[in-house]
Amino acid sequence: MNNLTKEDISNWLQSLQDNICQGLETYEPVARFKEDLWTRSGGGGGRSRVISGEVIEKGGVNYSAVHGELPEKIQQALNIDVSSFYATGVSIVLHPKNPHVPIIHMNVRFFETAGGPWWFGGGIDLTPHYVIEEDAHFFHSSLKNVCDKNDKEYYPKFKKWADDYFYVKHRKETRGIGGIFYDKLSGDSEDKKQIHYQFMQDVGNSFLPIYTHLLDSNIQKKFTDAHKRWQKIRRGRYVEFNLVWDRGTKFGLDTDGRTESILMSLPPEVNWVYNHKVKEGSEEAKTQSLLIKDIDWVNHRVS
Amino acid sequence: MNNLTKEDISNWLQSLQDNICQGLETYEPVARFKEDLWTRSGGGGGRSRVISGEVIEKGGVNYSAVHGELPEKIQQALNIDVSSFYATGVSIVLHPKNPHVPIIHMNVRFFETAGGPWWFGGGIDLTPHYVIEEDAHFFHSSLKNVCDKNDKEYYPKFKKWADDYFYVKHRKETRGIGGIFYDKLSGDSEDKKQIHYQFMQDVGNSFLPIYTHLLDSNIQKKFTDAHKRWQKIRRGRYVEFNLVWDRGTKFGLDTDGRTESILMSLPPEVNWVYNHKVKEGSEEAKTQSLLIKDIDWVNHRVS
Repeated sequence: MNNLTKEDISNWLQSLQDNICQGLETYEPVARFKEDLWTRSGGGGGRSRVISGEVIEKGGVNYSAVHGELPEKIQQALNIDVSSFYATGVSIVLHPKNPHVPIIHMNVRFFETAGGPWWFGGGIDLTPHYVIEEDAHFFHSSLKNVCDKNDKEYYPKFKKWADDYFYVKHRKETRGIGGIFYDKLSGDSEDKKQIHYQFMQDVGNSFLPIYTHLLDSNIQKKFTDAHKRWQKIRRGRYVEFNLVWDRGTKFGLDTDGRTESILMSLPPEVNWVYNHKVKEGSEEAKTQSLLIKDIDWVNHRVS
Repeated sequence: MNNLTKEDISNWLQSLQDNICQGLETYEPVARFKEDLWTRSGGGGGRSRVISGEVIEKGGVNYSAVHGELPEKIQQALNIDVSSFYATGVSIVLHPKNPHVPIIHMNVRFFETAGGPWWFGGGIDLTPHYVIEEDAHFFHSSLKNVCDKNDKEYYPKFKKWADDYFYVKHRKETRGIGGIFYDKLSGDSEDKKQIHYQFMQDVGNSFLPIYTHLLDSNIQKKFTDAHKRWQKIRRGRYVEFNLVWDRGTKFGLDTDGRTESILMSLPPEVNWVYNHKVKEGSEEAKTQSLLIKDIDWVNHRVS
């Protein structure tokens, strides 16, 4: 087998982007993804694809492969001593119109330095406006299967990582029901690189079947203005997490990344209501109560 | 004259809050400010007042006076060596319904350490959805008058400070048309304290006449759905500044401040549109072109 190159990985990521966009478009009666090609002055560029549809009110599926010199500041932050880098990945955020359909986020990425270390990172996590326990169980079980196939230690570790990462500290709540989050899957052999690449592919390939299942289960559900109001409030929390706490967003905005691609993750039609309180015993209160860390969704008994 | 105490300042700030709320309520046919009293576990508390009206779609006028022990981390950031502090201030953000009326923000504050340094800080700045040159000229001239009465060096210095502070780096645009921003007005005599206190009062007292003039000039203007759409996009930029770049917000969220009072500044009904472009020659394009630093609004010739 030939050595795995960064170009192999980038090519695969592009095909992943193609497949996911095609799969999502089958749900849209009219809307199609619009593509923006962009280049980065320091080197490389990307292929941003966004959709505004009947099912996905606002969604982005972004591919990029950038390279160049790593600023001193970032070398220090990463604790490496190599100035030339290559980074490639696919990032997805989908904001559905129907509040009964969850927001989903996926990112898979590969980072390499010239002659120095390389690593993989990524994850998938779910942010339901209304937490549906069957869906949460399905979501986490699916991710556990993807993990277990690669390494039995992955799911518990990466599930906890997601719980800790997607935490809106100032609200004392999780962004959603978590998922998996991992970073710095690294090694010093070609074998290791192939193994981690396989995991990236498994994660990436799991996205479409997982999300289409969640779409199929919920898309026919009726919703009211009250459901939409709640959705807009939950979207506000999503914005708060991404702009205040998300290290990826911060890194991108700080290092002069392409703003429109970075902020593609922000939802349409958001509302901030001062001191909003959920009604005791309501569906909203139930959701709120489930936005906490360390729920064992795989073994969760549906109440 | 008796020495000026922190209680004097807090009392004056409360009356400022009262006056401003009363003045704004005269514009509302029905809505009135709702008050939330809150206490801080570490010491002190506040009086948050919010309104959801016909004229002010969402507005907050917040008074607080908190005290207690200063965390080590903050002592270091402030470069002081005193652990006991008192901080009091009034913060205002008003999001009007009519897109022809600007968003306004004011903050005046006093900070004191036990036996150590004290200082005043604050400012007023304006974020029009549509920049109207007469209004911008009026706004800056009014602030210049307030400054000049106290110190001829203030306006140029504090105007530049506002331009630099209210900058949305990742958008390469200012949040609005600026205003004045100042901090650490300090001294080592009672005289100096009185002088800076006078300036705080002048700034605080200028708020209502300035904003009511801007309301009176624009409130009757008709607006369309297109104006509202643009307003929602501009509000998105307001959110981006506050959550990504505003040090006050970051400080509050990081130090376990009262989230609802800190995020009172966030607008209602916001929208993020991927890669939104203004139409050449439009009112929106004109506004965009004026969201830059260092416009001399006092001497600006209206085009």
